[in-house]
Amino acid sequence: MNSQQVSCETGPSASDFLIASKDSELKNLQYFLQMGKVVQCISNLVHALQCERGASNVFLGSDGGKFSEERQTMVSRSDRLNEEFNQALGDIHQELTCHPVSPTLLNQMAAALHALDGLSGLRQGVSAREITAVDATGHYCQLIQSLISVVFEAADVAVDPTIAGPLVAMVHLMNGKEFCGQERAVGSAGFSSGHFDSALSERMVHLIESQERCFEVFTSFADEDSIRLWHQLLANPREQEIHRLRQLGVSIGRYKPLDPSLADEWFRLMSERMDDLKTVEDSVEGCFHARCTERFAEARNSLAHQETLIASLDARTTASQPMLVLCDSGKDQPSGESWASDGVGQHFGRSIFHLVQEQTQRLKDMNDELQGAREALEDRKTQEKAVLFLMEHRGISNDEAHRVLRRLAMDQGRKLPDVARALLSMADVLK
Amino acid sequence: MNSQQVSCETGPSASDFLIASKDSELKNLQYFLQMGKVVQCISNLVHALQCERGASNVFLGSDGGKFSEERQTMVSRSDRLNEEFNQALGDIHQELTCHPVSPTLLNQMAAALHALDGLSGLRQGVSAREITAVDATGHYCQLIQSLISVVFEAADVAVDPTIAGPLVAMVHLMNGKEFCGQERAVGSAGFSSGHFDSALSERMVHLIESQERCFEVFTSFADEDSIRLWHQLLANPREQEIHRLRQLGVSIGRYKPLDPSLADEWFRLMSERMDDLKTVEDSVEGCFHARCTERFAEARNSLAHQETLIASLDARTTASQPMLVLCDSGKDQPSGESWASDGVGQHFGRSIFHLVQEQTQRLKDMNDELQGAREALEDRKTQEKAVLFLMEHRGISNDEAHRVLRRLAMDQGRKLPDVARALLSMADVLK
Repeated sequence: MNSQQVSCETGPSASDFLIASKDSELKNLQYFLQMGKVVQCISNLVHALQCERGASNVFLGSDGGKFSEERQTMVSRSDRLNEEFNQALGDIHQELTCHPVSPTLLNQMAAALHALDGLSGLRQGVSAREITAVDATGHYCQLIQSLISVVFEAADVAVDPTIAGPLVAMVHLMNGKEFCGQERAVGSAGFSSGHFDSALSERMVHLIESQERCFEVFTSFADEDSIRLWHQLLANPREQEIHRLRQLGVSIGRYKPLDPSLADEWFRLMSERMDDLKTVEDSVEGCFHARCTERFAEARNSLAHQETLIASLDARTTASQPMLVLCDSGKDQPSGESWASDGVGQHFGRSIFHLVQEQTQRLKDMNDELQGAREALEDRKTQEKAVLFLMEHRGISNDEAHRVLRRLAMDQGRKLPDVARALLSMADVLK
Repeated sequence: MNSQQVSCETGPSASDFLIASKDSELKNLQYFLQMGKVVQCISNLVHALQCERGASNVFLGSDGGKFSEERQTMVSRSDRLNEEFNQALGDIHQELTCHPVSPTLLNQMAAALHALDGLSGLRQGVSAREITAVDATGHYCQLIQSLISVVFEAADVAVDPTIAGPLVAMVHLMNGKEFCGQERAVGSAGFSSGHFDSALSERMVHLIESQERCFEVFTSFADEDSIRLWHQLLANPREQEIHRLRQLGVSIGRYKPLDPSLADEWFRLMSERMDDLKTVEDSVEGCFHARCTERFAEARNSLAHQETLIASLDARTTASQPMLVLCDSGKDQPSGESWASDGVGQHFGRSIFHLVQEQTQRLKDMNDELQGAREALEDRKTQEKAVLFLMEHRGISNDEAHRVLRRLAMDQGRKLPDVARALLSMADVLK
């Protein structure tokens, strides 16, 4: 009978790996607690850069006549927030790079930092008025996009649904707000020149629609408090005013001149809207932080509890017979079967079995819950891929590609991500 | 102009994160190099346990008359391979648990180790003939499944397509081989009793079909050498013989008695088949190891190369003006734009820019390539979920649930994973 004894002395035991599994969850949460600080800094910095972009636009559009002072104030604020961002990165650099979460997230961080390195040059160009408003806007847009992409990648690696949800809400809110900022710039260009040509009008339509879709996803993942703030924003009388001006921008023909004084009103209204959106962002960020802290405390307690439990089980059964309790890996029968030759050690076996099974079930439930967040991000990626494919395939602009996709979805009565997926599935035969 | 200078001294730089991104890839590969050893041990141990299960079945089926010696030999071999598995785990325990890859993988490891703890009890039951052949088989199956699931979870966390592919091939081959082992047991039961009742026949059909589907996925992910071995296996005259016996098992009515001496032939043929499948497994394992080593060396060289490059760029441009090169995050224009106030530092900017962009493109390509492997695993998970749903919803067995799904797919002329997905999408309204 001796040869039938399985030697388990040489390697780590089931309980070692159970503890390691819990511990790995804990490390992930810790990582996101720290990522939260970075996300907050990015949200602040992006807002400051959006203000700086707006002021730079007015400055360049007025040939340096307007907003010279304001712009300097905003530049200083961006610098201060960039400093904070750098400090936050310095604080967690060790953690971010030692815990090798995702090469993609780290590389996106590199891209964002590199884009920030170009900021002084851009500002010099603006100060010296050596760059057009359109080009300056383009550069600011890319810089801001590279920062938002960091949050996107962070959401993409989150494995805990309670924290992935707020991150998905956050990144869609940030994207929506950025479309709003771009709409402000497009509207300003139209109103101040006294007319919208069809390109400007179309771009405005694109930005309005893109914004709305982002906010839709935001509302399906945001917490109640943030959604309440969002509804308050929508109920603000300012939104009616914005709607009225938007109508002028998207419907008026190029031959009907507009009152150029509308430009100031438009800029003011849209800037207020963006400040309000920032308040919603802060609320989402607060919720994200609260959930991380909560889940972290929970996970730490659960780990400590299990360690105590396992230690006491180990102590009780050190010398007992090995016995048979087979774990159900979720593959076959819905519940685990057990077969024990006698009562000795049964308690130990059952308990470890239950702990492992409990963890299996928890991880499975979490994964199912995560599905929604994953799909939202996947949808975004698919659409971006479809847009890139159309741009390359037909040599059209980003806006046009978006329009083609939207028209396709409308014509077929299908959702945008479905149309994008269908298109990509045919990409190979279309090339 | 001073206030426009972005201070970047406080935090880590773009190159720090670029290096971190490369380094994170390297750590991932190192992890899989070590996981490879565990996968190899699991493949060996599973094969030994399958042999042990077969021998135990014959032993119990012959009331202890046959295979008593053989069984002891196989038990000793399993013990030796279990020992090796434990040693391998001991060697890499540190790495496995410090690099917090996936709580699910670690928990599955706990489940497998716990199942192994029950092996002695099971063997005692078999030796004393206190357990039926059917029950013993059931316990061995669950144990083996829990070990294969570890490989599945490992494949699920692989982010490098060159190593995810072989792992997907591996886990499907292992699963197919396990279905083959179960078919051997079912056939043995039928032939030795001289007839197949309809339950036995249906189970045999299920196992044959499941095997074939696994091998299909295997062939779409395996390397050429392994596929060649697989074709050699199929061309072996033994396969004709197996086919003939299978036909007897699945088509003969319960009233037509079979020659019980066929049992020995069946057992021998199927055991040979499994040994051949193990040879294919070894080849896949070899390919996996070779790819890991290759990719690891590649990644290490690339990291070293970039570090040198970045250091030389840093040295050349320490005192230069900051300038503007914006990174394209893949969001808008297909190529990055750059705008530099003058030539100073342009080389530096361009180079870091290109390095980051190169890494972005590489990670994107890798991710696209990974898609196929991900989908194969996702398909499997979806089918298992659909089967579990049917089992719970209609109170039917695992086999029946599989049959229902297959019939549905056949009737609708759709693929099994699609039918499973469609079913799950309706699960909420069916509950």
